[in-house]
Amino acid sequence: MNLTILGCYAATPRTLTNPTSQVLEIKNRMFLIDCGEGTQVQLRKNKIRFSKINHVFISHLHGDHVYGLIGLISTFSLLGRKNDLHVHGPKGIKEMMLVQLKLSASWTTYNLYFHELEGNESQVVFEDDKVIVRTIPLKHKVYTNGYLFEEKPAERKLHIGKVEDYGIDTCYYQKIKNGSDITLDDGRVISNSELTFDPPAPKSYAFCSDTLYSEDILPIINNVDVLYHESTFLDTEEYLCEKTMHSTAKQAATIAKKANAKHLLLGHFSTRYDSIELFKEEAQTVFENVELADDGKFFEF
Amino acid sequence: MNLTILGCYAATPRTLTNPTSQVLEIKNRMFLIDCGEGTQVQLRKNKIRFSKINHVFISHLHGDHVYGLIGLISTFSLLGRKNDLHVHGPKGIKEMMLVQLKLSASWTTYNLYFHELEGNESQVVFEDDKVIVRTIPLKHKVYTNGYLFEEKPAERKLHIGKVEDYGIDTCYYQKIKNGSDITLDDGRVISNSELTFDPPAPKSYAFCSDTLYSEDILPIINNVDVLYHESTFLDTEEYLCEKTMHSTAKQAATIAKKANAKHLLLGHFSTRYDSIELFKEEAQTVFENVELADDGKFFEF
Repeated sequence: MNLTILGCYAATPRTLTNPTSQVLEIKNRMFLIDCGEGTQVQLRKNKIRFSKINHVFISHLHGDHVYGLIGLISTFSLLGRKNDLHVHGPKGIKEMMLVQLKLSASWTTYNLYFHELEGNESQVVFEDDKVIVRTIPLKHKVYTNGYLFEEKPAERKLHIGKVEDYGIDTCYYQKIKNGSDITLDDGRVISNSELTFDPPAPKSYAFCSDTLYSEDILPIINNVDVLYHESTFLDTEEYLCEKTMHSTAKQAATIAKKANAKHLLLGHFSTRYDSIELFKEEAQTVFENVELADDGKFFEF
Repeated sequence: MNLTILGCYAATPRTLTNPTSQVLEIKNRMFLIDCGEGTQVQLRKNKIRFSKINHVFISHLHGDHVYGLIGLISTFSLLGRKNDLHVHGPKGIKEMMLVQLKLSASWTTYNLYFHELEGNESQVVFEDDKVIVRTIPLKHKVYTNGYLFEEKPAERKLHIGKVEDYGIDTCYYQKIKNGSDITLDDGRVISNSELTFDPPAPKSYAFCSDTLYSEDILPIINNVDVLYHESTFLDTEEYLCEKTMHSTAKQAATIAKKANAKHLLLGHFSTRYDSIELFKEEAQTVFENVELADDGKFFEF
């Protein structure tokens, strides 16, 4: 599982900072999460192949999270894309995109599917044999969801030496990987635990931007490996959180701690501060394992 | 009169090239012309003050000419803009912007006026005491206008020595500047040509992007000082012009020559070519005074 930050700053794109967008690669699937203006250029800069992106997850319809999507959709067409593209996001995202395509007399060279959300409970929005994605309802000025990306538990790994020693036929291997004990021809029962060992633990990533501090999300993100949580402000500007419906670094760290997350990744920084290191320092007063997102940064988990 | 090229490449934004946008400063007025994705960042990079832009002219609703506008409109609000903003462009541009503002539950901190165009004849879209702007109907896949920006003729300049020698009272100066002869108290008539000299010739700039080769525009742009004309292709790809409704460098030069333009500025280059110098070489086989637009280039005319 790895993550490329394309942009992680609040509000407006600037010469050296980009609005929110990131690419999560999990079990060989590439998911684009949010798509602020300039995302297609950031994808190119970070050498991410456009054709590998088949699913886009948009948290909410504020410009700094979605204004780059229409350009990306259009560019895919100009490049002759054939693969389906699935866009998951709040109700209204389809209208927002189609009005622009209609008025520019454009169309897509591929099938473009919109999966619009309007529920206030966590729901599954994507699932295949390896990965499951759920919404994390957030509290913001407009309808907003974070997303929880989880690897599905892998099958158990064979102790190949043991299995061969017992002379077990290969046709039983899948059954063993699925967790079964095995009865040999002589009647002995070999327990699964003797024949297998644990696969790597499935990994998970929670993306939470933008949101007011909310403990309601804790049951959804409990024990997550990596929590990306917005920290627009430092504690000194905590008084702005209620009005703008954003969080501080300290609040993000509190959520990470209470959710028993392994790593906390901070982002959505207001550009009012001189150094983003201040966010890390503040968060680490509450939770040790903090990393800072930054445009172009690559994380491997 | 000066011009800053923010972007001048066709189709999609790339790491080092931007879609169409430029800023014309004429008689101290700043006009933004077209607004592809990334324009707001290009404005910052080129140190153009957002607050000086009060009029935006959009040629057509293809993404590479308009997808940066909603971000700019939003950023103006985030910065607390108070000045009115006027957007001139094809019918539909208002819907395109308002749907996005509505769905992101955003509004502007300033008055935002749309001036929608749908006529097929040249028309005046802006006029004040110093400058007049007209449409240049173009031939493209969707409804498209170029724009002709013209300084109004200035008043005549006084030969101040002459005027004083004749003892003419200052209350007549404005009349003389407006072109009148003067009758002195002793009855002598002094011709205006003796008292004044020509002001600098009014300058003009024609922006023509995107378009199929069309001589219909010649009467509108006749004798223009600077003609920006798209040249998406070289002559070797002339066969693509009809289908895509674009022009070659040679065709742009032919228009410049037939319009008796002083300068030709080429832009809207397809990124398929190794060097944009090829466009200049081709155009100069027809018209001598050719310059190449390029992102970040500044021209003073």
